[in-house]
Amino acid sequence: MISHTPPDPHFETRVRASFARQKVMGTIGARLSSVLPGEVTIELPVQESLTQQHGFVHAGIVTTIVDSACGYAAFSLMPADAAVLTVEYKVNFLSPAVGDVLIARGRVTKAGRTLTICSGDVFAVAEGREKLIATMLATIMTIRERMGLEG
Amino acid sequence: MISHTPPDPHFETRVRASFARQKVMGTIGARLSSVLPGEVTIELPVQESLTQQHGFVHAGIVTTIVDSACGYAAFSLMPADAAVLTVEYKVNFLSPAVGDVLIARGRVTKAGRTLTICSGDVFAVAEGREKLIATMLATIMTIRERMGLEG
Amino acid sequence: MISHTPPDPHFETRVRASFARQKVMGTIGARLSSVLPGEVTIELPVQESLTQQHGFVHAGIVTTIVDSACGYAAFSLMPADAAVLTVEYKVNFLSPAVGDVLIARGRVTKAGRTLTICSGDVFAVAEGREKLIATMLATIMTIRERMGLEG
Amino acid sequence: MISHTPPDPHFETRVRASFARQKVMGTIGARLSSVLPGEVTIELPVQESLTQQHGFVHAGIVTTIVDSACGYAAFSLMPADAAVLTVEYKVNFLSPAVGDVLIARGRVTKAGRTLTICSGDVFAVAEGREKLIATMLATIMTIRERMGLEG
Repeated sequence: MISHTPPDPHFETRVRASFARQKVMGTIGARLSSVLPGEVTIELPVQESLTQQHGFVHAGIVTTIVDSACGYAAFSLMPADAAVLTVEYKVNFLSPAVGDVLIARGRVTKAGRTLTICSGDVFAVAEGREKLIATMLATIMTIRERMGLEG
Repeated sequence: MISHTPPDPHFETRVRASFARQKVMGTIGARLSSVLPGEVTIELPVQESLTQQHGFVHAGIVTTIVDSACGYAAFSLMPADAAVLTVEYKVNFLSPAVGDVLIARGRVTKAGRTLTICSGDVFAVAEGREKLIATMLATIMTIRERMGLEG
Repeated sequence: MISHTPPDPHFETRVRASFARQKVMGTIGARLSSVLPGEVTIELPVQESLTQQHGFVHAGIVTTIVDSACGYAAFSLMPADAAVLTVEYKVNFLSPAVGDVLIARGRVTKAGRTLTICSGDVFAVAEGREKLIATMLATIMTIRERMGLEG
Repeated sequence: MISHTPPDPHFETRVRASFARQKVMGTIGARLSSVLPGEVTIELPVQESLTQQHGFVHAGIVTTIVDSACGYAAFSLMPADAAVLTVEYKVNFLSPAVGDVLIARGRVTKAGRTLTICSGDVFAVAEGREKLIATMLATIMTIRERMGLEG
């Protein structure tokens, strides 16, 4: 594991405040669990309202939580006055998203001045056991001029 | 544009029935608009309940509609007894997802026996003008053994 | 097709000079054919020395020419004093890379201040007919501070 | 780390024989170093003949070795009569490919019946120190009908 030192000591407060402004997280029922320097975990209880035609959680919803986990992992290492935007990502889906809860873990692979590269994994928990169901490789951008963006 | 001949003449009925089973589409308010051979369009009215911290529609929700547009574009060219699953995708985000409605268009680039390659674009419509905000390149799988999967 | 206006009227000279410095292009035998604003074409005669275990041109060599085609498509729209670097790409391989010559076409989808998004296609030509064998979606960066980089 | 049990006990012989048929590896000077179940390492001495315009090894050549590392990691876990093909990959480039030698490590994340998901990393070694310069996420296909393909 790579160890990161966040330039902003209040990184956790900043990440939690930004997550609280992501209204979509309330809509789908996702919760921010842990916020560490360069590593963020989001949990999503599986619900029928989020499923695709086979009854699995839709790939796009799986992507939603792991994108935010990666984005906030990057954001945790940014200066206090920066904003974060997702440039692009790729996701591979390994197994159906079924179970009790999905856990998305995002981690910073390399934090650059402008671009941060993150990897993310999503696990489905059923009967207390975790199974890897999706994996992401993402490019996240630090926006310094802010352009009116907050967080 | 590539012209495709669907092996199942009832492809549109099959696509619309499968889309109707995607409960997440009702949850976010997405509608299936056109279903052509190898090309499917999904529309999503922009709502505050789908936004991230800057008030844009969350990248994962943008991904949700363009994934389904690509998946159903592939599904429209599959045999009547096949099921469809997303193997993986990459999405680039070009501009903020703001406006009145998002339009996701998925198109088949190459339909293979097992794997179908699709490209998708998402446009944001504001004041009657379309702007490209995201583009996807996706790998979709034809499941023939069905494994209990429907559609 | 999107029409682009290059900020540097000498874009073609600049692209051709940079391509000439890519020693790997001489090593594999690739040629820069057309250089248009936001669109660049590279050709590679198929040779046994570039093949993988089945006798097809190796995916990485196919990637090499379409990466340069995309990178130079982006570079053609950059200011005269900028350098170009590939941030990331995704490539799907649709058919075996066999035939007489491979033609890689890179096109700018969106040219931003810092990041440019490009799409690329590779065609294999055999008996005078083109077949799409690979497609790329790439993120290219404009380096302004140069950091000692030329072209 | 995930532990894998290869169905073919002669997996290393099979991987090394296939690598030996990849003529492009001789052309660029790459060597197959270790072959473990689900994990393969390829080394490439840095040479001027492989560079792009800034004197770094070209992104496509970096991709060539990590694609083969991932493909052979997948191949090591396939049945003796299967062939291997790359469906698609994404690569992020983190730092310039400079130094004495590049080391590409491919690992299987999930080996499925038809599709295997791999991750790969490329390190540049300079003055005895390794630096991560690129990371790949790839989808590899097991070809069972062989279609005349060997290895």
